Amino acid sequence: MTAALEMTRLGYACTLLEARGSAGGRVLTLRAGDVVNEVDSSQSCQFDFDEDLYFNAGPSRIAQHHESLLGYCREFGVKLEAFTNDNRGAWLHSPGAFDGQPQVARRLLADTRGGIAELLSTAINQDALDQALTEADKANILAMLRQFGDLDINNSYSGTPRAGFPGQENVGGRQRGELLPARRLQDLVTEFFWELRLSFSQGFDQQPVMLQPAGGMDRIARAFESRVVDDIVFEAEVTEVRKTADGTRVIYEDRSGTSSTLEADYCIVTIPAPVLAGIANDFSAAHQAEIAGFQYSSAVRVAFQAPRFWEREHNIYGGITWTDQDITQIWYPNHGFQRETGILVGAYIFDGAAGNRFTDMPPATRIDTTTAQASNVHPQIRDQASNGISVAWKKMPFQRGGWGMSNPSVLLTADDSIVFAGEHLSILPGWQEGAILSAYSAIDQIVDRDRGA
Amino acid sequence: MTAALEMTRLGYACTLLEARGSAGGRVLTLRAGDVVNEVDSSQSCQFDFDEDLYFNAGPSRIAQHHESLLGYCREFGVKLEAFTNDNRGAWLHSPGAFDGQPQVARRLLADTRGGIAELLSTAINQDALDQALTEADKANILAMLRQFGDLDINNSYSGTPRAGFPGQENVGGRQRGELLPARRLQDLVTEFFWELRLSFSQGFDQQPVMLQPAGGMDRIARAFESRVVDDIVFEAEVTEVRKTADGTRVIYEDRSGTSSTLEADYCIVTIPAPVLAGIANDFSAAHQAEIAGFQYSSAVRVAFQAPRFWEREHNIYGGITWTDQDITQIWYPNHGFQRETGILVGAYIFDGAAGNRFTDMPPATRIDTTTAQASNVHPQIRDQASNGISVAWKKMPFQRGGWGMSNPSVLLTADDSIVFAGEHLSILPGWQEGAILSAYSAIDQIVDRDRGA
Repeated sequence: MTAALEMTRLGYACTLLEARGSAGGRVLTLRAGDVVNEVDSSQSCQFDFDEDLYFNAGPSRIAQHHESLLGYCREFGVKLEAFTNDNRGAWLHSPGAFDGQPQVARRLLADTRGGIAELLSTAINQDALDQALTEADKANILAMLRQFGDLDINNSYSGTPRAGFPGQENVGGRQRGELLPARRLQDLVTEFFWELRLSFSQGFDQQPVMLQPAGGMDRIARAFESRVVDDIVFEAEVTEVRKTADGTRVIYEDRSGTSSTLEADYCIVTIPAPVLAGIANDFSAAHQAEIAGFQYSSAVRVAFQAPRFWEREHNIYGGITWTDQDITQIWYPNHGFQRETGILVGAYIFDGAAGNRFTDMPPATRIDTTTAQASNVHPQIRDQASNGISVAWKKMPFQRGGWGMSNPSVLLTADDSIVFAGEHLSILPGWQEGAILSAYSAIDQIVDRDRGA
Repeated sequence: MTAALEMTRLGYACTLLEARGSAGGRVLTLRAGDVVNEVDSSQSCQFDFDEDLYFNAGPSRIAQHHESLLGYCREFGVKLEAFTNDNRGAWLHSPGAFDGQPQVARRLLADTRGGIAELLSTAINQDALDQALTEADKANILAMLRQFGDLDINNSYSGTPRAGFPGQENVGGRQRGELLPARRLQDLVTEFFWELRLSFSQGFDQQPVMLQPAGGMDRIARAFESRVVDDIVFEAEVTEVRKTADGTRVIYEDRSGTSSTLEADYCIVTIPAPVLAGIANDFSAAHQAEIAGFQYSSAVRVAFQAPRFWEREHNIYGGITWTDQDITQIWYPNHGFQRETGILVGAYIFDGAAGNRFTDMPPATRIDTTTAQASNVHPQIRDQASNGISVAWKKMPFQRGGWGMSNPSVLLTADDSIVFAGEHLSILPGWQEGAILSAYSAIDQIVDRDRGA
């Protein structure tokens, strides 16, 4: 849709062939009554009808520097609100650590910073780093480390209010007497799991502030769609992409199986590689080979409707809890705070063996498995979560994968008059910003060629 | 209002004497047409009329574990949204560092973590910490530090995507080739200023997720007020607080100077100490002495209306920029993203010499000074910011200070039938949650006495 919108603005006549009844690809926001048809199953979304009860099964967050996407939000008037990755009140859980008791993020983070700062202070005070540091450097760094780790005046770490207070790690703080005992760094790092998760929100594309459209991620796709809708042929499943003497020819079928043909000077192919690999084409052998070998993530998401026990009982307002079980992440809604119910993402599995295991399950088994694992973190889920629904992207028709995980090469260049685009061909795979940047690149290839020819 | 609400629920008949025309104390949200009358000046708020154009001149954020306050928000139906302290796209600025060029937080944070992790790795690899760490500890910690600082496989830090990309530290990332050069920790810490600010959002009460009421902080105070309004006497300026044989007597004046008298079994005094010190009373010498000596912050805030250049030109969506000038902080609005204009807090000064300097200025001088200093960070402010307004809490009638900065002692105990309450007498001075907890404590004192008597 980005390519069509911008090429139309440049004076090109565009036609979009969309296999489904609405455009937006993997942007999928599920609400009451929506149907999820995977290749071998069908689910109906049973959430209550309510504007806050939606489930972003695909992209769910926007980095504040994804300025192309955000520029369209501004232009289209899509209302934005904050999305949280790093909630210090959310939890980390590993069945094998701390007797399986979830740990509040603030405590693990505070102890990690404290331990690192104390150890480095010890080394500096033992003159172990005198080759690298002057006396002035050492004094400056020791002072900095006291702030960094909340150390005492002797640069020792013996706990900090940053961790919360005993018995109140997660439920407020009416009493603030003694500190929680400091955990030694060497004991924390036996669970390497923790630090991996604690560093997640340091990533350039995951740092605060993250944003989300109010009302669901598909607000952006719908805004795009409304601007190019006259050029879209819906329920047009492409069956062939051909080269002609002076351009391209695409054959597509409507729902009844009736074929149509579209000829054009150029064709921008944004079909995900796993789907494209099964479509008859005239691509070069090198393009075909890269398409055939392109790997995609096995992303799976499972969501429930539930009363907001995480807010009422645990003071968790948005953000992500991590668990070292297959379900990987639990997401709390970042909107509709303090309403009676909300949509809880009970599992967000990115890829790998766990993703494949969940993809292979029938939807009911995914729900049961998620309920069982998520209940190890929040026992309330067993009785209170309902209306579960799941999306396994490798089983979604016309998508057949979460996002591209191969490094593109040949597909970044045109194949005669055929140009390729999509998140998988961008520097930001898996992000809507990536899909837009890739569209810009496809446009550049066509415009440059028309200017140069 | 908390005490009145809860004591009424317990069966007590309560009367609130409120010096102003509306209740809420230092909860002050300014909108178009509002007037700020300090003791020696008057300002009128010139913002455009718009629901998103408001300025919280007092409390502005709520920690997600401030569960008493949040409980009232839930009960009252006050809609909440996220508030950001830690925006990695916001800036840090010191006139004396980096030629006065603001630095994007993400880069300073990434280099700080990288430098700490590399130095500690070096010390560990030189066996400097072998007294404290086993070989297994060392291997675990080295692996953790690679994640923590984004080090290479040799535990060296040579830059990271977490810092942003050259020329694109703050404006997105269409090109992601080479990394920004890594800055050495010993060079960063010559500006101790940085780390102080970088650790701010680690604090228990400042960690993510922070919350704010949609539409302005006074939504909470207004909700309280509507529930106790029948018991409030507005524009009732207390002139005397007396003890009687079996209770208390309060004398107050209305706007015309007419005196009234109220007798009650108990009196809960929530008047800020600097104001209370000037009211005739029968308090014990110890209570009087603590009131007379109670120190308050010299908090000052200055706000402007401005087109949202911070979003459009710098991809900053909410959060705080720090500067080592008197103005201390610049706050970007955490709501109304991508609207044409917003309210920018151009200065938030907590206390100390800078707070006193700004308090002593006439409002127009505060605006000019803030414009000059804030323009060193964002030059756009000079031409684009307008409709400036300021609040210096030490000059606000009936308040005369930001928040309590002394440790309470005698005031935590009743003086016969007179009980004291307020944020300054809580474990959370400066926070609305603290005022509520203090009210609970005052209620406990009265109820315990009635039960025990």
